[in-house]
Amino acid sequence: MDELGKEIRTAAEGMREELVACRRDLHHYPELGWCEMRTASLIARRLTDLGYEVLVGRDVCDETGRMGVPDEEILEREYRRAAAEGADPEFLEQVRGGFTGVIGILRCGEGPVVALRFDIDALPVPEAQGEDHLPAREGFASCNPGVMHACGHDAHITIGLGTAKLLMQMKNRLHGTVKLIFQPAEEGVRGAKSIVDKGHLDGVDYVLGGHMGGNPDTAEPAIGVGNGNTLATTKFDIYYHGKPAHAGFCPELGKNAMLAAATAVLNLYAIPRHGAAGTQVNVGTLHAGTGRNVVAAEAKLEVEVRGNSAAANRHMQEYAFRVARAAGEMHDCGCEIRLMGAADCTENSPELSARVLQVCRDRLGLSCVEMKGGASGSEDYSYFSERVRSQGGQSCYFSNLVRCAGPFHNSQFDLDEVGLVNGVITFVGMTCDLLK
Amino acid sequence: MDELGKEIRTAAEGMREELVACRRDLHHYPELGWCEMRTASLIARRLTDLGYEVLVGRDVCDETGRMGVPDEEILEREYRRAAAEGADPEFLEQVRGGFTGVIGILRCGEGPVVALRFDIDALPVPEAQGEDHLPAREGFASCNPGVMHACGHDAHITIGLGTAKLLMQMKNRLHGTVKLIFQPAEEGVRGAKSIVDKGHLDGVDYVLGGHMGGNPDTAEPAIGVGNGNTLATTKFDIYYHGKPAHAGFCPELGKNAMLAAATAVLNLYAIPRHGAAGTQVNVGTLHAGTGRNVVAAEAKLEVEVRGNSAAANRHMQEYAFRVARAAGEMHDCGCEIRLMGAADCTENSPELSARVLQVCRDRLGLSCVEMKGGASGSEDYSYFSERVRSQGGQSCYFSNLVRCAGPFHNSQFDLDEVGLVNGVITFVGMTCDLLK
Amino acid sequence: MDELGKEIRTAAEGMREELVACRRDLHHYPELGWCEMRTASLIARRLTDLGYEVLVGRDVCDETGRMGVPDEEILEREYRRAAAEGADPEFLEQVRGGFTGVIGILRCGEGPVVALRFDIDALPVPEAQGEDHLPAREGFASCNPGVMHACGHDAHITIGLGTAKLLMQMKNRLHGTVKLIFQPAEEGVRGAKSIVDKGHLDGVDYVLGGHMGGNPDTAEPAIGVGNGNTLATTKFDIYYHGKPAHAGFCPELGKNAMLAAATAVLNLYAIPRHGAAGTQVNVGTLHAGTGRNVVAAEAKLEVEVRGNSAAANRHMQEYAFRVARAAGEMHDCGCEIRLMGAADCTENSPELSARVLQVCRDRLGLSCVEMKGGASGSEDYSYFSERVRSQGGQSCYFSNLVRCAGPFHNSQFDLDEVGLVNGVITFVGMTCDLLK
Amino acid sequence: MDELGKEIRTAAEGMREELVACRRDLHHYPELGWCEMRTASLIARRLTDLGYEVLVGRDVCDETGRMGVPDEEILEREYRRAAAEGADPEFLEQVRGGFTGVIGILRCGEGPVVALRFDIDALPVPEAQGEDHLPAREGFASCNPGVMHACGHDAHITIGLGTAKLLMQMKNRLHGTVKLIFQPAEEGVRGAKSIVDKGHLDGVDYVLGGHMGGNPDTAEPAIGVGNGNTLATTKFDIYYHGKPAHAGFCPELGKNAMLAAATAVLNLYAIPRHGAAGTQVNVGTLHAGTGRNVVAAEAKLEVEVRGNSAAANRHMQEYAFRVARAAGEMHDCGCEIRLMGAADCTENSPELSARVLQVCRDRLGLSCVEMKGGASGSEDYSYFSERVRSQGGQSCYFSNLVRCAGPFHNSQFDLDEVGLVNGVITFVGMTCDLLK
Repeated sequence: MDELGKEIRTAAEGMREELVACRRDLHHYPELGWCEMRTASLIARRLTDLGYEVLVGRDVCDETGRMGVPDEEILEREYRRAAAEGADPEFLEQVRGGFTGVIGILRCGEGPVVALRFDIDALPVPEAQGEDHLPAREGFASCNPGVMHACGHDAHITIGLGTAKLLMQMKNRLHGTVKLIFQPAEEGVRGAKSIVDKGHLDGVDYVLGGHMGGNPDTAEPAIGVGNGNTLATTKFDIYYHGKPAHAGFCPELGKNAMLAAATAVLNLYAIPRHGAAGTQVNVGTLHAGTGRNVVAAEAKLEVEVRGNSAAANRHMQEYAFRVARAAGEMHDCGCEIRLMGAADCTENSPELSARVLQVCRDRLGLSCVEMKGGASGSEDYSYFSERVRSQGGQSCYFSNLVRCAGPFHNSQFDLDEVGLVNGVITFVGMTCDLLK
Repeated sequence: MDELGKEIRTAAEGMREELVACRRDLHHYPELGWCEMRTASLIARRLTDLGYEVLVGRDVCDETGRMGVPDEEILEREYRRAAAEGADPEFLEQVRGGFTGVIGILRCGEGPVVALRFDIDALPVPEAQGEDHLPAREGFASCNPGVMHACGHDAHITIGLGTAKLLMQMKNRLHGTVKLIFQPAEEGVRGAKSIVDKGHLDGVDYVLGGHMGGNPDTAEPAIGVGNGNTLATTKFDIYYHGKPAHAGFCPELGKNAMLAAATAVLNLYAIPRHGAAGTQVNVGTLHAGTGRNVVAAEAKLEVEVRGNSAAANRHMQEYAFRVARAAGEMHDCGCEIRLMGAADCTENSPELSARVLQVCRDRLGLSCVEMKGGASGSEDYSYFSERVRSQGGQSCYFSNLVRCAGPFHNSQFDLDEVGLVNGVITFVGMTCDLLK
Repeated sequence: MDELGKEIRTAAEGMREELVACRRDLHHYPELGWCEMRTASLIARRLTDLGYEVLVGRDVCDETGRMGVPDEEILEREYRRAAAEGADPEFLEQVRGGFTGVIGILRCGEGPVVALRFDIDALPVPEAQGEDHLPAREGFASCNPGVMHACGHDAHITIGLGTAKLLMQMKNRLHGTVKLIFQPAEEGVRGAKSIVDKGHLDGVDYVLGGHMGGNPDTAEPAIGVGNGNTLATTKFDIYYHGKPAHAGFCPELGKNAMLAAATAVLNLYAIPRHGAAGTQVNVGTLHAGTGRNVVAAEAKLEVEVRGNSAAANRHMQEYAFRVARAAGEMHDCGCEIRLMGAADCTENSPELSARVLQVCRDRLGLSCVEMKGGASGSEDYSYFSERVRSQGGQSCYFSNLVRCAGPFHNSQFDLDEVGLVNGVITFVGMTCDLLK
Repeated sequence: MDELGKEIRTAAEGMREELVACRRDLHHYPELGWCEMRTASLIARRLTDLGYEVLVGRDVCDETGRMGVPDEEILEREYRRAAAEGADPEFLEQVRGGFTGVIGILRCGEGPVVALRFDIDALPVPEAQGEDHLPAREGFASCNPGVMHACGHDAHITIGLGTAKLLMQMKNRLHGTVKLIFQPAEEGVRGAKSIVDKGHLDGVDYVLGGHMGGNPDTAEPAIGVGNGNTLATTKFDIYYHGKPAHAGFCPELGKNAMLAAATAVLNLYAIPRHGAAGTQVNVGTLHAGTGRNVVAAEAKLEVEVRGNSAAANRHMQEYAFRVARAAGEMHDCGCEIRLMGAADCTENSPELSARVLQVCRDRLGLSCVEMKGGASGSEDYSYFSERVRSQGGQSCYFSNLVRCAGPFHNSQFDLDEVGLVNGVITFVGMTCDLLK
């Protein structure tokens, strides 16, 4: 650990209680993707108060670049909820309607541009309420039924705000520009594209993203760096529009969306596997029909495909779209496909990965783990990474490993809050190293 | 038309305004099967006030003979709604919990027993609200969102109550017993069995049922009698209980209820047709899964099969159950089948059919139509018919034909209220003829 | 029975041994549709020898009107077989290549044109060889392995030739024209169209066809006449042409015809039933793939649809074609559909039906049965019927009922040869009656 | 290259013409798995003539351990063919009936036991006959229609016999035992198990297998060694036995094997992918039904599953069997599953792999390639490897790389015959090294 490392550690550890309080407040008020209106308004408030140049709402998210945005009606209901739950009134209006991204910019003269990315949305998972679940026991479990920060994004936001505070204090020692990007709707890989489309990653030299990791057996907190590889994925909804008919009198007059949907389901799963690449497909939900004795006129399927290469994912997407369309055609129900999310698969820049490991270990005194392979699952951080690397910049996506209760995306999920301090140390330390 | 006919016609026509008012009130407050608590309580009130011996609730419906009863929670919500919509407080408690049958008995000494059946439930169809829809224009369209008397059961109840009034006035001329049976939950063929199971058709010599019929082109009101044949049917729900898993990381750990459901859908429709008999099958609704990236753990299908003979329907039911179970077994999701409704197919007694035609034409002065074949669709009147005929009694199910706006089961459905008068004439006239 | 009847009966009964010998020879040498080269050449020989004006081969069958013609290779093999089995050398050349229709014309001055139709092909059914099967016991069972006259067409041909002989003897008493049409490839409803397309039914006033009928319990030989109604049907083959690939290394490079075929099968059966009409669909055979570890590149399905009305059959055909094409599109295998047979559903002309019954009973002294409904199954006699009736002519298709061993299309099928005599009496008697 | 290497190279190169002649004879007479009766009899003859202790037929292959053996009828036909094609009369009787394994043993006193494995069967691939295909041009292309040595097993046998000759010449320098195992039916992974079951690998210390490899671009012949890993696989046939019925009259009386088969196909492909392991499934062939208008009573499917771990393959097999059985149950057709082949996935012993590379490069002067990952595809060499390694022995499966015309398993496949010499050098050199 060097001097800088010591200074950062001391400062970050001194913020511990503040970080914990912030995280627990966010955990208590989880919000789904594009509905993070309380969250975003409070982030904007805080960054403004800290002295950042702040972008909010339509200035952050390109309207047409957003994917999987809920209906207007839901957005309005969520707006009212956010207001009732203590959103900042000034910024709430700006994020209304599903424009819940926030960017804080700190300009420190000449030098590279470093972007740090923090995702802010929660999951449609009901939170455990038993005494064995710490957030419930301590009274900060979700107050929004069916919604939970079960993926640690509450910690990500907290780390982002803690990082914002410390960097502002150390700004005299930085040479270049810092962009703190708070991204909505990571779940379902729906939000990153709108920020990249808006141009916020243009001209960025380094981009860093981190995700909480670990499990009940994780013995020691550590920063883990692998090759960053995540699965490319496409999320889409299929709609079949048929025609109802009385199922007893005249089924031949109907157009049976149920048959189209069932045919699509079987054939989507039946897309032949790749010989060389890993692929996945899932039909997660299917809702069809209105009554037992009526030919089902409408069906909706929520689908995703994945691939461990962009080509494999593209192959799956093309095959899946062909299946979807042919199944509709078969039963004369047409086929409407709506893109609901997308992420590519990317790799970390080896130089930056090595630098993160070296800085964390040698300068910041954190335990480090070299991880094999990539993060499992999909991440729309890939949009950030792809844009920066294609400009000649570097990207690293790392894991902030702590002991976690329960698996990710589970009602029992919780995390050791030491990760909040470690996260701040890592982001601040790396930013200082890159902008020294 | 003979003297009796003239007298009945005059009396019935004199009740016209009263009948229209009654029907429009019922139309305004439609209630789904087993939830007809306002309706049933008001029927019981009215029969009591007219002087009938009245059976209500658990005295009418055998508890285990009921099929497709909603959850307790829904029944309680509907109970509160019925109370708020003016249910009769005395009888409301008796019909609470989904025991919504009512029987009025009039004993007039020695003689045969005649049962008249009136079904009372509405459909899950939202009523049209435009000016071109008479009930909306006249202000008596449904006030219960998503529920509508779109099958004319409001008229059936009204005819039943009008018949009750007239028969009471003419009781001195009757020799025998009249049973007016107001049956819940005909839609989905769920209610008749519970009344027959309770024994109310035991000892009945004649049973009559009528259904509104006609279409926009029906020129002249008439009573139509065919062979009464309806399709035998079985209604059932299929539940698959699988196991969720992350669709990207470990789909192999899940048990995929979506695949079970899709396989069931395709194979249910694919049950080979009969060479000799007419059969039908429909999967009306399917709901499966909770999230795009989760292996669907649960699926529910609402299904019906039909046959134009009991054997054909039984063949379909057995094949369908086998398909359902094997599809669940295939994907290790088990298979729970819940019986939700059933009706057999029966035929009118030729003697009674001929007598209805003759009495209506010659004694009552009504236009009559001899119809080919049976009523299309299914009807749990079959339970009444079957029980009475198996005891050596006679049954006739006839059509009360008037001009109708829109098809049955449609948001635009309405009927010419002259049918109310004709219905009363027919039931009263036939009862007098049978108990003379 | 009148004088004419007596004369015809006596003559026909006098031919009994000749008829039996003829039928047994034909039974011994059964030939599949379009391969009836021995049969057709011998028919042409016989008609010529009797003095008829004879049309053979391409003069009878329109080339493009033929459906389901075997490959050239098979036709050549069958040509050599026919030659070896005693075909008439003169006519064999004319029927070579699958032009196996024969027409004999007898012109007797002014008067109506009467066409009599006899179908001549056998079935791909292996004949029973046990002692309990009379043809085997008597030594005239099929000598062509896997081929059998299991539908009685050997009797039809024999009756046609017997009729030819008698009519020639009685030609002085006829006023008009007789056309004896020997049609190939009735099995699979493949042959009639080519004869009608050639114009041979143009200008025909009356057309008669008969089919052997009966079962082991048929007590008394009789002529049966119903409404003649047969099911409309379309027979077609589906071919999917995909692309092979190693199933272990690179299945993603293949185009999977197996998946296209399986999807087609399930969805063809799953075409929703009609509410009003009877329909059928069958995928009788499916052959796909070349090896266990290769993605199947080719699949062939033999399919038929039926309907008890032309509209119902057309609905089925359109839906089935759409299913077939979409299933191919879904897996990128294209879809080739080849029409292999077709028949409409027609009804007998009531006047001619009544006349057949009356003539058979009153003039010819045959037992008669008025049958309910139509013949079950499909028959391309419908092409003859349709053409003649659309010109204002009359058609009747009747049953020649005798005791039969085993069901039709079965290895054990055999028929009481008294039907040969009765068939001749009926055709000759009716022709005399129509051309008197 | 050391002295031994030089000596072996000189000897092997001196045999070149003999090796080429041998391989071309074998190539001309390819035989499918379990039918290699000419081949096996000639191997036994040669080993006997060389002075080996020879085991043949039932002494080599355990009867019940054989998988995917053809019908008796085919075996007899092949026996007659083999006789006609010059099989050795003495040994032909011993290999009759599908017992086509041969083992030659050379005992040289105390020391380890080394087993060398050579597979001997050909593929059901028709050989190219054009002038651009060297075997055709040179006159040694397959004379058995539809059968071809398209996987290089002709070279394997030749190498085995060449190795036998050289080792016998050098026997004085060997200390231990050599077992030359000529295995039938490797294609379809059907033969190895029967030899291992018979105990021939018990007590073996080292086992070596080699396979020809390379492609049209392979510049330089070389010996390649990777981790030897192959895919675990299970090959099986599914039979459905339903009941025929006339598809137009009474399809409801049939039991539809076509529907069972189509349901199985779709659901086999639809088995959800693994998150962690590579898996495959293929339905390579499907044959169902006998006629267009008959409900298909019989269906047969040839299926395989694979996994890149034993557990993944077992998961696939269990799921696939469950799908197969449930599909049969669904349509009341039962389900018969016949195991046709199986192989596990194994890894090379690192010590022996390193030794092969070192010996080939340093002692024998061959080019060597360290290959990444395993051989693609499946190999029942895994049975040998598994047995030897489980006893504490070592196994190595290497590639004999030469320029090849056309891909493996293709009609155009051919190989550079220099591989024959290199193969002999490698096997002899390794044996000498292991038994020095």
